Amino acid sequence: MSQARNRRIVLASRPTGAPVPDNFRLEEEPLPEPADGQFRLRNLYLSLDPYMRGRMSDAASYAAPNPLDDVMGGATVARVEASRNADFQDGALVLAFGGWQDYALSDGRGVMALDPELAHPSHALSLLGMPGFTAWHGLLKIGAPKAGETVVVAAATGAVGSVVGQIARIRGARAVGIAGGQDKCRFAMEELGFDACVDHRSPDFPAALEQATQEGIDVYFENVGGAVFDAVFPRLNDHARIPLCGLIANYNRTAEPSGPDRLAPVMAGLLVKRILVQGFIIADHYGPDHEEFLRDMTGWLREGRMTIREDIVDGLENAPEAFIGLLEGRNFGKLVIRINA
Amino acid sequence: MSQARNRRIVLASRPTGAPVPDNFRLEEEPLPEPADGQFRLRNLYLSLDPYMRGRMSDAASYAAPNPLDDVMGGATVARVEASRNADFQDGALVLAFGGWQDYALSDGRGVMALDPELAHPSHALSLLGMPGFTAWHGLLKIGAPKAGETVVVAAATGAVGSVVGQIARIRGARAVGIAGGQDKCRFAMEELGFDACVDHRSPDFPAALEQATQEGIDVYFENVGGAVFDAVFPRLNDHARIPLCGLIANYNRTAEPSGPDRLAPVMAGLLVKRILVQGFIIADHYGPDHEEFLRDMTGWLREGRMTIREDIVDGLENAPEAFIGLLEGRNFGKLVIRINA
Repeated sequence: MSQARNRRIVLASRPTGAPVPDNFRLEEEPLPEPADGQFRLRNLYLSLDPYMRGRMSDAASYAAPNPLDDVMGGATVARVEASRNADFQDGALVLAFGGWQDYALSDGRGVMALDPELAHPSHALSLLGMPGFTAWHGLLKIGAPKAGETVVVAAATGAVGSVVGQIARIRGARAVGIAGGQDKCRFAMEELGFDACVDHRSPDFPAALEQATQEGIDVYFENVGGAVFDAVFPRLNDHARIPLCGLIANYNRTAEPSGPDRLAPVMAGLLVKRILVQGFIIADHYGPDHEEFLRDMTGWLREGRMTIREDIVDGLENAPEAFIGLLEGRNFGKLVIRINA
Repeated sequence: MSQARNRRIVLASRPTGAPVPDNFRLEEEPLPEPADGQFRLRNLYLSLDPYMRGRMSDAASYAAPNPLDDVMGGATVARVEASRNADFQDGALVLAFGGWQDYALSDGRGVMALDPELAHPSHALSLLGMPGFTAWHGLLKIGAPKAGETVVVAAATGAVGSVVGQIARIRGARAVGIAGGQDKCRFAMEELGFDACVDHRSPDFPAALEQATQEGIDVYFENVGGAVFDAVFPRLNDHARIPLCGLIANYNRTAEPSGPDRLAPVMAGLLVKRILVQGFIIADHYGPDHEEFLRDMTGWLREGRMTIREDIVDGLENAPEAFIGLLEGRNFGKLVIRINA
């Protein structure tokens, strides 16, 4: 299904607060032709992830801002075409950073070959990809839950949260999810195996979380912040660990919230309860840890111990709207754009 | 210099905000007589430390509140008298939890024999005692500075801060102190060997701290909080570590400070810079770590690599006023009450 031209979505302007459709622009350009040592990626699936909001801003952050008028970056599952690189054959299935577009050029750096027999190639964007590695590293290398301890994670049906819960269970811990809405909570318990799941949109959310964590919380995998953190914080046990992975509740914020200033009481709580907080960015950890993760995850997949729900949206042109919805929690499962698959 | 009676200072009432003299009461009682297995401690030196403020409150904390009308607790260097315990001979010099009083009874639990030849027995309350162990554990086991990194600590002439700076230097790190006033800063640099020291009372404190930490801050040993934290936070480097040991700026606070609420931006900073925060309470770490500390510290003392300034106040009856001053930073050096020495 080759196309004569490449459609691509560029960053047209930087958002103030929540992104809007006008921050993106769909363009067309000629099909890119590989030079010597390069190959063309035909993107099949594009991963949409919350971290992309940070790259739309030009504030100093851990990742360089996406340049204006440049294609939006993002991980893709792709087929190799027109290869002039001996390490990648035409037709090979790969995980790459192909961006929000139909086609991309690559010299092979950062491109990982995928098993061509992979039943669900898009899983390379979640379970086997960055979200799965993020969950694995944060939970096991920072949270380090012991059997019988209670692990809490929000966005429990999302790409990271759902894996956190499943790994926690594999390690013998109790997994308590937080999600937006009864449908997501039911899915987390019935399909993902969470021991409990609490709806953060419910007016009795703090009380329900207390009910679901009667022995307190030993590991809080932080990916949201905001009102969820407020409900979790008083439930933390002595010696709790907080892998600090994301703060999606803040990503669209334009001003600091009004007072009182809770910094001092939170620091006092961290001290009195001897709590660990460790911020981490998964890009720092590719190396031996990543190989260990791939061994663990491929083993769990082979044993049928890992489930992922995907929220697949068809068509590159729908990526901006889907991404805007992701920041509002409108997706249900790992958000993936199907492009040419 | 035996006395027929025991003077003791009890907690008369719990403070609201800063402690006042009326929160304490000096009482007399008959000299306590050891039962079988016990001995009497004649306290020589009493350590006054910021953590005592927490025990004056009845809010839930890591240490049980000091009961009302009960003697104030505290570590002492003492002589053994009237022993009916085979493990402790009359005249032995010991480190004990003898409290704010002339005499105490003990069954030997938690009592550590001291070298009778110790040139400065009161050093057992600082360098060899809880403050020294706190500095050692927080800096080396949590902060883990590498040679050439920058370590910042406040209360730099105090019992903990002065040891943090000296150990940092021994490990080849750059030690930057923060202290209240030019005299303390001069002492930190000239006598304790800090590479730089910044006066937090100076109106240009944040700019002076920036000047003193041109390569950023890798380890911030947190024992004060408040405005010092605010100046330190933007200077933290990627992968910085914050051993969270105390928050003296908050101890007398009765209400949360007004907004804006800085919790969200601080959490975002911890994430983006991949910072570690680890609350700790030194009482958790007595065991193998403590033995390692004693080996290190006695070695450094023998080699003449450790200095401590003591602020010695004579007379048990002056302990309340000295303690009130400690929370305001009026002491200069480790605060010790000399009782019967």
